[in-house]
Amino acid sequence: MKQPDSIVKLINKFMRLGGVGLKTAQRYAYKVVEMTDEEASEFAEAIYDVKKNVRYCSECGNFSETDVCEICARRDKTVVCVVAQPKDVLAIEKSGAFTGVYHVLHGTISPLEGRTADDIRIKELLSRLGGVEEVIVATNPDVEGEATAMYIARLIKPLGVRVTRPAQGISMGSDIEYADEVTLSRAIETRTTL
Amino acid sequence: MKQPDSIVKLINKFMRLGGVGLKTAQRYAYKVVEMTDEEASEFAEAIYDVKKNVRYCSECGNFSETDVCEICARRDKTVVCVVAQPKDVLAIEKSGAFTGVYHVLHGTISPLEGRTADDIRIKELLSRLGGVEEVIVATNPDVEGEATAMYIARLIKPLGVRVTRPAQGISMGSDIEYADEVTLSRAIETRTTL
Repeated sequence: MKQPDSIVKLINKFMRLGGVGLKTAQRYAYKVVEMTDEEASEFAEAIYDVKKNVRYCSECGNFSETDVCEICARRDKTVVCVVAQPKDVLAIEKSGAFTGVYHVLHGTISPLEGRTADDIRIKELLSRLGGVEEVIVATNPDVEGEATAMYIARLIKPLGVRVTRPAQGISMGSDIEYADEVTLSRAIETRTTL
Repeated sequence: MKQPDSIVKLINKFMRLGGVGLKTAQRYAYKVVEMTDEEASEFAEAIYDVKKNVRYCSECGNFSETDVCEICARRDKTVVCVVAQPKDVLAIEKSGAFTGVYHVLHGTISPLEGRTADDIRIKELLSRLGGVEEVIVATNPDVEGEATAMYIARLIKPLGVRVTRPAQGISMGSDIEYADEVTLSRAIETRTTL
């Protein structure tokens, strides 16, 4: 038995969103069938609108509806926090601990996947360092994130800019018993005085 | 920090698909931002097309692009398999074990959620029983599914139509050791001769 063609097509579109398997995509498509005409057109319009309205901020590379995003337009530009993806900006903003501006690399250096420094926004970072006192490299603490951070530090330090990285250690609410060895050894090495 | 309005809107639309939380919806929306214009319009078009083209088959109630679906148009109408949802039709079709037609109830009887027999397509089932020899009630073997099956059986049996239910028992490839008690006791009661 064949499903209606338009359902099959929509299922394929949902599967392109990444991490969506056949069953999930099917569930989403069936949900669309059950929407009212109005709900469905609002959904389709929302997709068009995102493509029409959202661009990348010409300074930091984060998503924005204006040429320069709200954060770049208003905040302290002496401290720049470098992140791999726009979603990392959101996470740091939620913490409320950072009041400077961001720089989104849109990726990390990954020899395994063939991504070099030229494939991410490192040149753009260098071109906006005038007046910058500190660069916080908040890439993930994994192999690629660490390699990217080291690369950036080696480039920027000679320019007299302070390069830092968020502290690594034991997460709030977690158990020392279950912390992995690398995390625990770093946490002890970088212990703080009470 | 505020995300661009059009992204927030699209995130809300994705969250209406059911079972999609904020983080997942955000991931989908970001994926849309990163699509090419062409990909994004194809996605939006696919949503419009589903709403424009897909209706319910006037006989069985399954999704269809024509007034009467392919299955109802072509297959043996003496056996009707009653299911709760369109996705159940797909699952049974994949098994290849059924060659009759379907009847989609679009729900089950659920006193807890306030759904009575009038809220699902039971009247429509009764009106198409002319010439039908057997009704297989393939609702889920849970409280609501069982109640719905019992209700249908009590309505239809007096009309001289055979009412059956798929066998319950131990699943292929599973362990008797881990089968739940109800399943195991039913499997033993309805044991088959080798």
